[in-house]
Amino acid sequence: MTEMTSPAPLARTAVIVGASGGIGAALVQAVSERGEVERVFALSRRRPLDLPPKASWLSIDLEREATIDAAAAAIGEADLVIVATGLLQDQRQAVERSYRALTTEAMARSYLINTIGPALVAKAFLPRLPKDRRSVFAVLSARVGSISDNGLGGWHSYRASKAALNMMVRTLSIEVRRERPLALCVALHPGTVATPLSAPFQKGVPTEKLFPPELAAEQLLRVVEGLSPRDSGRFFAWDGSEIAP
Amino acid sequence: MTEMTSPAPLARTAVIVGASGGIGAALVQAVSERGEVERVFALSRRRPLDLPPKASWLSIDLEREATIDAAAAAIGEADLVIVATGLLQDQRQAVERSYRALTTEAMARSYLINTIGPALVAKAFLPRLPKDRRSVFAVLSARVGSISDNGLGGWHSYRASKAALNMMVRTLSIEVRRERPLALCVALHPGTVATPLSAPFQKGVPTEKLFPPELAAEQLLRVVEGLSPRDSGRFFAWDGSEIAP
Repeated sequence: MTEMTSPAPLARTAVIVGASGGIGAALVQAVSERGEVERVFALSRRRPLDLPPKASWLSIDLEREATIDAAAAAIGEADLVIVATGLLQDQRQAVERSYRALTTEAMARSYLINTIGPALVAKAFLPRLPKDRRSVFAVLSARVGSISDNGLGGWHSYRASKAALNMMVRTLSIEVRRERPLALCVALHPGTVATPLSAPFQKGVPTEKLFPPELAAEQLLRVVEGLSPRDSGRFFAWDGSEIAP
Repeated sequence: MTEMTSPAPLARTAVIVGASGGIGAALVQAVSERGEVERVFALSRRRPLDLPPKASWLSIDLEREATIDAAAAAIGEADLVIVATGLLQDQRQAVERSYRALTTEAMARSYLINTIGPALVAKAFLPRLPKDRRSVFAVLSARVGSISDNGLGGWHSYRASKAALNMMVRTLSIEVRRERPLALCVALHPGTVATPLSAPFQKGVPTEKLFPPELAAEQLLRVVEGLSPRDSGRFFAWDGSEIAP
């Protein structure tokens, strides 16, 4: 990240994918509060509970590509797209504590939701980034998706899918740079956020490192504002520090 | 890699998964030629054409976990397992030159073959590594699976699945180290090998960097012999140099 540049205007049209999730809903709120943001699109399968007046909801299902394409066509040009979907564990699968718990189903499903879904959003929205000014396509990744940072093990399906997502972002950024030199494609680590996703794992997290969703959203937008084109393809934490692959 | 240690004996029982492929078949040959190797198991769906006398074929289908478990149970203890399977492209899917070519099917299938398959082999064979001496579980990855090395883009499905595989290896290695301090779990880059997999991409490769499968196999075994336990969880090229994630 560049410390020297003053923040760029966030966006005119912002799209938040996964708008009914904890961080997604907070991102919809946070972008709606920015004066320069004219249109906000909240994309999710379920309708978000509280939608600010500026925001419109579009129904999508990341497992059905046609719904993503339809939303992108309805929106047209967008200069900020943040994909805030993700599966850590749920009723159908738990994070693995040992390789003995690995199953084809859990690995495939984590990949479908955490990697393929964001890739399909990129496919639909990258061609709609403006060509004449700065724009950002960002996905929420996770520090545990950093291979070099992995000292604890476990969470095999989640870690592998997020490492793959980080690779996808790097690969996409190279093509985006050729087509749109002012556009950025980045992965973001939001930190540990007080949402249902992280609820079972918050015990050891110090209070000042367990972010309310509103704070997490604001921190992520500040990172996005501070990015310059040479940051494209990289992976940044909530405080703007870069995370190695 | 440690340059100072003399090579370790390769193995008593070697298992090559993907034994009917170009590199896999050459690995079966190469391990069979080592005097210290007593038993060689060639695992693949199709029966390999030329099987050395020392080698036994066991039929497995990486998409059916029960066949992997059955092979592992039949073999029992093994101190060298190399997974040499992999999908770059075939009749059903081509490598992507642009994100516009991304499909759920190709991304999911690449992951199933390149990441989930080796993970299931690990699940079946890691508990059968000996506890009392050095052993190696290795998967064939690819340099294009290194995120930090990705300067060209393209090949999205393949790159993402190999990055995920590298993460899987790192994650597995942490658990393996706890259970078996003398066991290693590593990813290997064989270089560009003259096999059907790389045939469409050999044009720009200088002759001395396009390895016949026999040479590639010998180089990989030399890397395996030179590894020490502190190399576990890492990613090495055919010449023994480490590749960053």
